[in-house]
Amino acid sequence: MMHNFNAGPSILPREVLQQAAAAVLNFNNTGLSILEFGHRTQEFTAVMEEARQLVKELMQLDADHEVLFLHGGASTQFMQVPMNLLDAKECMAIADTGVWSSKAIKEAKLFGKVDIVCSSKEKNYTYIPKDFAIPNDAKYFHITTNNTIYGTQWQQIPQCSSSLVADMSSDILSRQMDFNRFDLIYAGAQKNMGPAGVNLVVVNKNILGKVKRAIPTIMDYRNHIAEKSMLNTPPVFAVYVSMLTLRWLKAQGGIKAIEKINNAKAALLYQAIDESSLFTGTVAKEDRSKMNVCFVMGNENIEKEFIQYTRALGIAGIKGHRSVGGFRASLYNALPISSVEVLTRAMRDFENGQRA
Amino acid sequence: MMHNFNAGPSILPREVLQQAAAAVLNFNNTGLSILEFGHRTQEFTAVMEEARQLVKELMQLDADHEVLFLHGGASTQFMQVPMNLLDAKECMAIADTGVWSSKAIKEAKLFGKVDIVCSSKEKNYTYIPKDFAIPNDAKYFHITTNNTIYGTQWQQIPQCSSSLVADMSSDILSRQMDFNRFDLIYAGAQKNMGPAGVNLVVVNKNILGKVKRAIPTIMDYRNHIAEKSMLNTPPVFAVYVSMLTLRWLKAQGGIKAIEKINNAKAALLYQAIDESSLFTGTVAKEDRSKMNVCFVMGNENIEKEFIQYTRALGIAGIKGHRSVGGFRASLYNALPISSVEVLTRAMRDFENGQRA
Repeated sequence: MMHNFNAGPSILPREVLQQAAAAVLNFNNTGLSILEFGHRTQEFTAVMEEARQLVKELMQLDADHEVLFLHGGASTQFMQVPMNLLDAKECMAIADTGVWSSKAIKEAKLFGKVDIVCSSKEKNYTYIPKDFAIPNDAKYFHITTNNTIYGTQWQQIPQCSSSLVADMSSDILSRQMDFNRFDLIYAGAQKNMGPAGVNLVVVNKNILGKVKRAIPTIMDYRNHIAEKSMLNTPPVFAVYVSMLTLRWLKAQGGIKAIEKINNAKAALLYQAIDESSLFTGTVAKEDRSKMNVCFVMGNENIEKEFIQYTRALGIAGIKGHRSVGGFRASLYNALPISSVEVLTRAMRDFENGQRA
Repeated sequence: MMHNFNAGPSILPREVLQQAAAAVLNFNNTGLSILEFGHRTQEFTAVMEEARQLVKELMQLDADHEVLFLHGGASTQFMQVPMNLLDAKECMAIADTGVWSSKAIKEAKLFGKVDIVCSSKEKNYTYIPKDFAIPNDAKYFHITTNNTIYGTQWQQIPQCSSSLVADMSSDILSRQMDFNRFDLIYAGAQKNMGPAGVNLVVVNKNILGKVKRAIPTIMDYRNHIAEKSMLNTPPVFAVYVSMLTLRWLKAQGGIKAIEKINNAKAALLYQAIDESSLFTGTVAKEDRSKMNVCFVMGNENIEKEFIQYTRALGIAGIKGHRSVGGFRASLYNALPISSVEVLTRAMRDFENGQRA
């Protein structure tokens, strides 16, 4: 039994993996693999439609919000979003909360102007900026709702009158939110939704078609909307597994139910950290992420020992990102609370052993 | 037992599917699925490196030719190629041999000038143009080596002094060729190499970095080369399955061996067509594709009957593309000759039944 705390690609529900493996051999009793199945068939079109509908339903999207499954990951969206939304003389506002925001900034600058309205860089991104003003002429305001590397998370949608764009790669479908408040949401699937190789894009269709530049066919969201996310051969298997995960999420009771479990998992781990004299959280308490929990010991040798110690218990993926060090435990939707219990017990046992 | 003649996504070797299904449950005996496995791990880095090395080896590429596995399909490359190679005032030359060439033309026009040096459009793309001249100032000459929809194929690399770029999506790794003659080759994996969702790009690194425009980070081949095709999270599973298929191809004896089998399969089917008085090939004989064999009956009702008849024999995917009609049997690397024998027998039996 493994306990998979990987930051991404990351844990998927066991039953989804079983269904996916079965479909690699025989998809829908067709005698053919999902990997060798035409994407224009009735069977796969139904998969794509179900995946899109499940997102609409789970996120309670209104009729203006379209759902797309596109090739690539967030790194593609860093350029595709400004390419579609930002004219050369226009300005977008952005909160700089880490590496991923910085990449979004870099790409947006190729297409228009960028106003970094706030940043937590000076404290190695260990908090979410609270004090900022968005210029009236900003075309949109971009946030990274959860910062996988540092373990920070916007607890609320920022109060602002501007159009909102969000990279939700690492907390998509993990908590309730008024998703219709956003004009564009993107998320690489490989955290809460599926395997690497597909991008979820939710876009308010009314904001499209307003830039003057010529957009390459494959980069224009409008073309994908018109073709119901089947403009070209989609990443068939990644969409299929995402659909299975969405079905699983619905069966769990949807976002409301999973949020409750996610809250309980995060509370358990943060409590263990706060009660420990060996482990320390790295992030401002009010900005702590419920998806990625970062903590350190302040002693690399003992940290290595702890990694070793947990490996024997089937705990995988808790090594921290090199820019933070220590540990990062990712508590995505599919991670059962029992895995968190194993980790917190290991932390206590290790600490007691250290003391003894 | 199914006989999968799908045009793409299409048949993969049975043993590859079995290995892929097993890895969805337990990758490399790690206890974790390949779908929930970090891409920066030693294990997956080894997969990516093996895939790249196998392509180098199988295609006998020289040291200047780099191998990349990128998100998306050929539709992304239609714009990415000119974005990287063609400056606004420069001109590329292209042979228009069908829908896919036309798409490449449309996207290239967004970046520079396009000289369509020949076209077979006036005969619904049923042949490969022979008579054309490439202007001296052309930055490169683009061909589509195999035209999936119409069933035509360039039998030789065209004689020219210009830099060559090729879309090899539907005949990559199917026949011997001096691949080093090309400065850039791209191919969506979903025909001869793997599942949908990954693109093979082979590029001569010396041609890069010569355009003046700013290229978005994720679109610049140089960044992918520098990061050994791990610039961002790659489409992990699609790369893994491609690697398995490349291993399989090597075990078959490589491209030379598979070409011999592909030739035999195509000869068998074309012979059945030519010997029949019911079925007619749609393509100029000298340009017939060994990957996609197109043929018609000239009577839609009997065509429907034949599809019905073959379905009972486990034959899948032979319905022709709507722009050609009739039938299209795709004979990709993984299709065994026994499947072609089943099809040709069905054609003869059906014809005899019709006569009786």
